[in-house]
Amino acid sequence: MVALSQEPAPKADARPQGSPAEIRQAIRRGLYDGPTGGLAMGYVQANLCILPADYADDFLRYCQRNPKPCPLLAVTEVGDPTLPGWGDIDLRTDVPKYDVFRDGEFVEDVTDLLSLWRGDFVAFVLGCSYSFEQAILEAGLRLRHVELGRGPCRYRSSLETVPAGPFRGGMVVTMRPFRPADAIRAIQVTSRFPMVHGAPVHIGMPHLIGIKDLEAQCDSGFLPMGDDELPLFWGCGVTPQVAVQEARVPICITHKPAHMLVTDRLNSSLSVF
Amino acid sequence: MVALSQEPAPKADARPQGSPAEIRQAIRRGLYDGPTGGLAMGYVQANLCILPADYADDFLRYCQRNPKPCPLLAVTEVGDPTLPGWGDIDLRTDVPKYDVFRDGEFVEDVTDLLSLWRGDFVAFVLGCSYSFEQAILEAGLRLRHVELGRGPCRYRSSLETVPAGPFRGGMVVTMRPFRPADAIRAIQVTSRFPMVHGAPVHIGMPHLIGIKDLEAQCDSGFLPMGDDELPLFWGCGVTPQVAVQEARVPICITHKPAHMLVTDRLNSSLSVF
Repeated sequence: MVALSQEPAPKADARPQGSPAEIRQAIRRGLYDGPTGGLAMGYVQANLCILPADYADDFLRYCQRNPKPCPLLAVTEVGDPTLPGWGDIDLRTDVPKYDVFRDGEFVEDVTDLLSLWRGDFVAFVLGCSYSFEQAILEAGLRLRHVELGRGPCRYRSSLETVPAGPFRGGMVVTMRPFRPADAIRAIQVTSRFPMVHGAPVHIGMPHLIGIKDLEAQCDSGFLPMGDDELPLFWGCGVTPQVAVQEARVPICITHKPAHMLVTDRLNSSLSVF
Repeated sequence: MVALSQEPAPKADARPQGSPAEIRQAIRRGLYDGPTGGLAMGYVQANLCILPADYADDFLRYCQRNPKPCPLLAVTEVGDPTLPGWGDIDLRTDVPKYDVFRDGEFVEDVTDLLSLWRGDFVAFVLGCSYSFEQAILEAGLRLRHVELGRGPCRYRSSLETVPAGPFRGGMVVTMRPFRPADAIRAIQVTSRFPMVHGAPVHIGMPHLIGIKDLEAQCDSGFLPMGDDELPLFWGCGVTPQVAVQEARVPICITHKPAHMLVTDRLNSSLSVF
């Protein structure tokens, strides 16, 4: 039996509540290292990609040339882990879990970068589909993967990204099925959010982008579609990660998928109209 | 041989040039009674539907309830053939050709309404797809039917309109094929123009709206589609005409298809953003 006066020990899997700042504080103090979906609803969650400064110019141009899969929200100063304008953020501690890649290979995940951070690191903060999914749901449309607590189906498409320096490769896309009238509405709603992948890149004819079998080629758990649904494909934030891995950058650190950076900006602030 | 000093007699098939006002003047003076596509490019051309006042309230509610096929731009005062705000317009003379329906049956076409106009007539002016087609072309997309000097394929769909009084019936739709990425762009572009049919009502799965055979069920000349194209369906201005005919209104006068009212408003003025 636990005495009432005894406070339970902090657990890293207790989902924090409250404002984005409160959630980042819990993560920063090591009280939470889990996925961030559903936390601080309404606020922008972002993809993170950290590279040595030697690669930053090329990567910046890669993002600029491929805004659908790589919508750039912010870039830090060299060596500076803060993110002015997005909250009181320390990128070394405020993401629940990080993936570390060396020479393009995954080597470990860590819960902070205090020992790995370097003075030549540049961090790229990229928009994430959570933002436009909120807009889709608020428009009254359903997202089956959200209802099932899953992620959307993900594919490596045959759409080529525009290269920059060593960064290149096929576009990774996520797929969400909709009935035709809802598909039109989903295109309208997501078009308002170019900073978080924006409108779909493809609709309805997966074989034209190298996807001959929706089920077999799905890189994440496949969810069956209805006969009356069309597949819509959006640029995916895994695209830059693949480009970085294929470039065999000596060191690259990203957020661990689903373990995002929670910022102080409202998703609605990213709507262009 | 024609003497140089002899001016050729005005011909009703000589396409007029110039401003919307100059084109209407030519039509009003009987110098032109042909189709208006391509005239006064950039200016709103509109569908016309004239009914006795007894039917006007129901028809107004029918348009309000079905804005995709029946986007209402203006309604006149009872018995008044002018259209303040849209130019120096006399609706009795300024449309090249009118179709007259009695008890729902076509009886004749005429080039003016001077002898048919009644003190209880109300005119409804409805948006037309020419406006959004201009926006599609300006966005750099191609429209095959325009290139061929034809109209788009038209279908009676199984989508039911919302009834009002005696007005009801299936929605007539027009179809334009696009490759998937262009389809997304066409949805974005036409979404900006809700006053002229706006976004499509359907995409990609014609059997879901009662169209099992795109070629056989086309009411206007069918144009073949590419294997890499999706059909997009927009609400069509023939829908209210069908509703009026099916309501067997004692008298109804419309523009003759393709012989539109040319107004002084710019298409671009109808864009909502």
